[in-house]
Amino acid sequence: MVITSKDNKRIKAVRKLLTKKGRLKANQFLIEGEHLIEEALKWNANILELFVLENSEFNFDLKTTVVTKNVMKSLSTLVTPPGIIAVVEMNTQTVDSNRILALDGVQDPGNLGTLIRTADAFNFKRILIGKDTVDPYSDKVLRSSQGSHFHVSIEDTDLIGAINNFDGIVLTTDLQGEPLNKNKITGPIMIVLGNEGQGVSDDVLSHANYKVKIDMPGHAESLNVSVAGGILMHQYSL
Amino acid sequence: MVITSKDNKRIKAVRKLLTKKGRLKANQFLIEGEHLIEEALKWNANILELFVLENSEFNFDLKTTVVTKNVMKSLSTLVTPPGIIAVVEMNTQTVDSNRILALDGVQDPGNLGTLIRTADAFNFKRILIGKDTVDPYSDKVLRSSQGSHFHVSIEDTDLIGAINNFDGIVLTTDLQGEPLNKNKITGPIMIVLGNEGQGVSDDVLSHANYKVKIDMPGHAESLNVSVAGGILMHQYSL
Repeated sequence: MVITSKDNKRIKAVRKLLTKKGRLKANQFLIEGEHLIEEALKWNANILELFVLENSEFNFDLKTTVVTKNVMKSLSTLVTPPGIIAVVEMNTQTVDSNRILALDGVQDPGNLGTLIRTADAFNFKRILIGKDTVDPYSDKVLRSSQGSHFHVSIEDTDLIGAINNFDGIVLTTDLQGEPLNKNKITGPIMIVLGNEGQGVSDDVLSHANYKVKIDMPGHAESLNVSVAGGILMHQYSL
Repeated sequence: MVITSKDNKRIKAVRKLLTKKGRLKANQFLIEGEHLIEEALKWNANILELFVLENSEFNFDLKTTVVTKNVMKSLSTLVTPPGIIAVVEMNTQTVDSNRILALDGVQDPGNLGTLIRTADAFNFKRILIGKDTVDPYSDKVLRSSQGSHFHVSIEDTDLIGAINNFDGIVLTTDLQGEPLNKNKITGPIMIVLGNEGQGVSDDVLSHANYKVKIDMPGHAESLNVSVAGGILMHQYSL
């Protein structure tokens, strides 16, 4: 059976996952395209259902619903919808890691996705999403993380509480901070990054116990947050 | 006098600067908003004309044309147009620098803008734009570079020719490369970065004389190009 109407009950329910509110309520999100779905499968993400364009060929051993182009378009965030979209359950399990990335108000979806991808590359397996940070399950974040969502744990958290419960170095950048230490630190580290314009909030900043400065001999006033995060995570990866 | 019509001759001419073709032909580009214009002025960019929304207050000692909201909208790439837009002459002068960033097919405007900003931060004052790289004067690139366009030289170049004329280390990343050298290199370096999907083209790759690998202990297959560029430029800045 092919679903031909955008008003189909199931399609309407799935379409709610295009909003943050709908995703949080259902504890589910959408991923578009074969590449992300393969990555999700490889990493044992819980794929609940596939929606596949009629007359397209995919071979996944999963509950699959065939839809028309119009219906697919209504589920997709892309101008050119892919042939396949999956409903995935959010993973709320926390990974144990002594490398943690905490994000305090990162607003740009591209930056957040890139930070998740970079955290994955450098083994920062726990990512804490503080308030005012953009929803990590929005389409743009998922696209720029390139599947890294399935390799790390992503937790909605009160950052102050998380810092208070953390026994290790809480590192952030500060123009008055120490030069980036070239020595490796083997103990637990949490790197805190802030908003693109305002940086880390005063509240969180006051809880950091190690402030470093990335030396910039040139004329730019600051670095993009995902570049700064990349330099720091590379420096402190194990 | 206030220009009230989008069909005004001068407005039509300026609107051509919204396309790459128009920009190249005129050797001019547009910048939107007070912040970028202040940065351009501070760095002695040649601002040819300002277009200002009627009833707004700006105090620049430059040729200024007042326009209606509708006309401003036709010149802007933003959903909410700023109150001020400037026509700026491209700077074709080459800065002398022993730190060069060469871009071989970087396609995402956000990545290119971030790379220009990062190059500026780490004193890579010459940026070479190889073919298939996105136009550095498009609005998105300008926005993410945050004014760094005015601090560096940006040159449209044949990369192979530039490499052949360059007496120094031509560095690129390669999965089979050496680990990132922790020693500072004081001589001239050109860092070559490639396309988001394909990396550096074979042709250019064969001209690199120093291939390094950024060690990634985690599970991401690769880094975003602007993050990789950030780590490399930070490493080799002087």
